[in-house]
Amino acid sequence: MREDEITGWFRQQRPLPPDAVPIGIGDDMAQLALGQGASVLITTDMLLDGTHFDLATATLAQVGYKSMAASLSDCAAMATIPLAAVVAVALPHGWSGRQLQELHAGVVRAADKYACPLVGGDITSWQGPGRFAVCVSMLSRPGDQPPVRRNGARVGDIIGVTGSLGGSGRRKHLEFEPRVREALRMVRSADLHAMMDISDGLSTDLNRICHQSGVGALVEAAAVPIAEDARHRPDPLEAALNEGEDFELLFTLSPGQWDRLQPCWDDPVPLTRVGVITATGRMEIRMADGQVRELLPGGYDHLVE
Amino acid sequence: MREDEITGWFRQQRPLPPDAVPIGIGDDMAQLALGQGASVLITTDMLLDGTHFDLATATLAQVGYKSMAASLSDCAAMATIPLAAVVAVALPHGWSGRQLQELHAGVVRAADKYACPLVGGDITSWQGPGRFAVCVSMLSRPGDQPPVRRNGARVGDIIGVTGSLGGSGRRKHLEFEPRVREALRMVRSADLHAMMDISDGLSTDLNRICHQSGVGALVEAAAVPIAEDARHRPDPLEAALNEGEDFELLFTLSPGQWDRLQPCWDDPVPLTRVGVITATGRMEIRMADGQVRELLPGGYDHLVE
Repeated sequence: MREDEITGWFRQQRPLPPDAVPIGIGDDMAQLALGQGASVLITTDMLLDGTHFDLATATLAQVGYKSMAASLSDCAAMATIPLAAVVAVALPHGWSGRQLQELHAGVVRAADKYACPLVGGDITSWQGPGRFAVCVSMLSRPGDQPPVRRNGARVGDIIGVTGSLGGSGRRKHLEFEPRVREALRMVRSADLHAMMDISDGLSTDLNRICHQSGVGALVEAAAVPIAEDARHRPDPLEAALNEGEDFELLFTLSPGQWDRLQPCWDDPVPLTRVGVITATGRMEIRMADGQVRELLPGGYDHLVE
Repeated sequence: MREDEITGWFRQQRPLPPDAVPIGIGDDMAQLALGQGASVLITTDMLLDGTHFDLATATLAQVGYKSMAASLSDCAAMATIPLAAVVAVALPHGWSGRQLQELHAGVVRAADKYACPLVGGDITSWQGPGRFAVCVSMLSRPGDQPPVRRNGARVGDIIGVTGSLGGSGRRKHLEFEPRVREALRMVRSADLHAMMDISDGLSTDLNRICHQSGVGALVEAAAVPIAEDARHRPDPLEAALNEGEDFELLFTLSPGQWDRLQPCWDDPVPLTRVGVITATGRMEIRMADGQVRELLPGGYDHLVE
């Protein structure tokens, strides 16, 4: 069972009351209505040693920063304003206050930078063998615009991304800047139809937008912005499409809105048009030679045979 | 470094703005102000295989229930109303949808019972060896009364507990009822000065109330309600004071309020007066023979020599 299937199964088990839970399972954050127009959003992310970072090479301060930044990226994915975070940890046997202080330094570096204070947590220890895990849960609130969801992409929309993709595992995945400010700036200037952050790779995450919006997509291979750290690869495009942990934003908007947004965008983080939303119901990619192939989550067709 | 010392250190690092974060690190939940009188509270709890449950003997449905119930108990500890939960899991290698569905059954059993829907989560898997961990983060909102904190106990207060204590490890820790309704009912009838739930044992948790309130306590050994599952122990009192995971409520209130609350209390979960708050600044226990000894977190004096 893949994660999306499991998530879909969970979603079907208990339909949520839309007045109390306007956004439920399956988006970057869930939204809870609190009455009188107030609402709050929540996300949770578990990061594991050996999976999301490797303590043999990463410092605990880097891990603390990454764990917060991943949740901040979820706030950005919906163009919401981070409010506060709680951090729960599972410590290997023999860890002491020193390791926690190191982790804390990274957590508060992100917290301070994005005005998202650490307000609580839980410290637990494995009895017997057990590896380090950290779980950040974060609250945000809508800005002046409603949260941008995954399910609003429309046929004819431009597909855009922030920054560049691929090669994140080399360095960026520990040091990335969540696109909180860029997301809020975009929604002030344009009407975005759909957005999410790229955590599992452009092909996988675009598929989520397509699936939830009931649309297809055509990506232009030549337009995909490939990160410096992916250019030395045997197949840089494959790295940019599939590696994940880019923590850039993936969004769709009408061509008219794109034409309004893009010329005025003077942020150092670029916006790039990488394709269009189509009515085909599936994802395709036009390669540099003009050939159109099917684009599957996790790879273009020859990769998954 | 003990958990309370670490928590204290964290609290000192970044003073939180009291208008935005009325309740920060160190209580059962943190409270965030959202403007116009609205606020939300948040708690996070990490539960680990081999520490908080044992998958050799507990079912995943029991674990799912317990993980939710522990956070619901935090909502009860402040007399707040549960709103919603998110659940993040770290799965051992080879787990599939079946295990997640079993866990989910326990999560939604608690969610349905306490009207606290599951609204999101995160599913991660260990690469290589790694044991099962589950982290629940839960939101609540204040009822008609402000959240009850740990730091409000006053000299002369009655110390009360719900239910009975000790022996939880035998069965109750997997099946307990969080005291959500009892807490809300108590604050409707009386003005509580301080409250928390008993997760680490009466002696340890009462010490937290004393420390945060700047007071002492005198516990009457003969008054401590000992659970059926602790009565067969060599030292049932010691079990009731120190074992923990009781998930009962520990609270203080003025004698006048106690005299008002207690006679009308017809709930099947009893309230028991176990002692008084004193000006001594330390915890004491009057044994059945009349002797007064020092009560230390985790044991009475002869246990920690």
